[in-house]
Amino acid sequence: MASHEREELLEGRNPVLEALKAGRNIKKVIIATEAHGQQIKEIEAYVRDQAIPLVYWDKKELDRLSTTHKHQGVLASVEPLTTVLVDDLLATARFKGENPLLLLLDGVEDPHNLGSIIRTAEVAGAHGVILPERRTAGLNATVLKASAGAANYLPVARVKNTVRGIEELKTKGCWVIGADQDGSNLWTEPFDLTLPLCLVLGGEGKGLSRLAREKCDLILQIPMQGQVSSLNVSVATGILVYEVLRRRTQSAE
Amino acid sequence: MASHEREELLEGRNPVLEALKAGRNIKKVIIATEAHGQQIKEIEAYVRDQAIPLVYWDKKELDRLSTTHKHQGVLASVEPLTTVLVDDLLATARFKGENPLLLLLDGVEDPHNLGSIIRTAEVAGAHGVILPERRTAGLNATVLKASAGAANYLPVARVKNTVRGIEELKTKGCWVIGADQDGSNLWTEPFDLTLPLCLVLGGEGKGLSRLAREKCDLILQIPMQGQVSSLNVSVATGILVYEVLRRRTQSAE
Repeated sequence: MASHEREELLEGRNPVLEALKAGRNIKKVIIATEAHGQQIKEIEAYVRDQAIPLVYWDKKELDRLSTTHKHQGVLASVEPLTTVLVDDLLATARFKGENPLLLLLDGVEDPHNLGSIIRTAEVAGAHGVILPERRTAGLNATVLKASAGAANYLPVARVKNTVRGIEELKTKGCWVIGADQDGSNLWTEPFDLTLPLCLVLGGEGKGLSRLAREKCDLILQIPMQGQVSSLNVSVATGILVYEVLRRRTQSAE
Repeated sequence: MASHEREELLEGRNPVLEALKAGRNIKKVIIATEAHGQQIKEIEAYVRDQAIPLVYWDKKELDRLSTTHKHQGVLASVEPLTTVLVDDLLATARFKGENPLLLLLDGVEDPHNLGSIIRTAEVAGAHGVILPERRTAGLNATVLKASAGAANYLPVARVKNTVRGIEELKTKGCWVIGADQDGSNLWTEPFDLTLPLCLVLGGEGKGLSRLAREKCDLILQIPMQGQVSSLNVSVATGILVYEVLRRRTQSAE
């Protein structure tokens, strides 16, 4: 099953069910003969509807294939999440009649943070996430799980690197706003966040790279007090994305 | 070392260093004879300054004591984090000349979420977190680590249960605002959030309990789009706490 390089293993009832609901390209589902319950029935129904190959194996076989050891009696072999182009994200926004709201992540290497950011972006109605090729968590099953399934829905685009991504976004009419503790402007200042927009966030501990910072149109700062003095990047993303939403909603009223 | 019930084991360089910096009551520090590096030197300096018992043991001994298996050559035996009373949190706010901003967590059982919320609250300058006795993650080393050390600084109060906590806060002049997906008011509506305030957030998946919801003065809703339709509770906390900060800052200008 793992012999085919273009396949990835999803483990556990929720991840498999989410992938089925999202209509992801699933090659095969394996259910442990001992497994039962409401979610197993739901999985079986989806698998039947979508005519996906299904086999029932002994739990020991699933244990052997599992890498997380949390398979809960279900594995699915899926095509990996694919990425799109920045143009596709902009086209999505245009199609919805909305001004783009994108996130470019500069060095977010922790898969849990990446998943959490994708979840927040999807829930907030952002149009996509952009990842540079390097210094980025891979778009794998851990990210998918941490995203609570949102990575099945939210498009992710790849760019060569952060600086090139920023340049492309600017030529395509996006205003590019970085977030950094050394930002010269507070996140509350009255910039027009209803414009086509991409927020750039840096990775854990390191923040934005110098080059990325220099390329941004503006660097916003979320004020921090206390002794610890840094927000988790997924929390910072939530604060900024919802500030954009707040302003867009109010300007539409 | 683990024989004394009122002690807890911190593992790893950052957690031990953070505890030393925060002046926590540390009973003993154990460093692996093989360990070296800048952080080890810093730990040794703090230990010397604070006259804390220090021993150098073989790495194998640390492996044996470690439960996380990420001790990085350092363990510390500390008194567990203690909790305070709601009155203490209110007194802290009064002492700072600020209107209280508190968080009451109703059923946050995941230690990573609890840690992340404590981190956000500390960074945002909230005056404390309130936990009911049941259906709550214990205030342990996992929470401390997930809080990036913030649990060393931010006071945490215990209440018998969420409903009693809300009642106490109300009698003491706090406005109690719950957050829930079924909230009747949007988080952007012009309520006066500069008043003494406690935000009540529900646990993973379940949200606020019905009784807690009924006791709140107001239930706010963060709008959610997309397929996944729920924010992580620590992200939701960040959005709400920073909305309060935003309004308090603007009203002070």
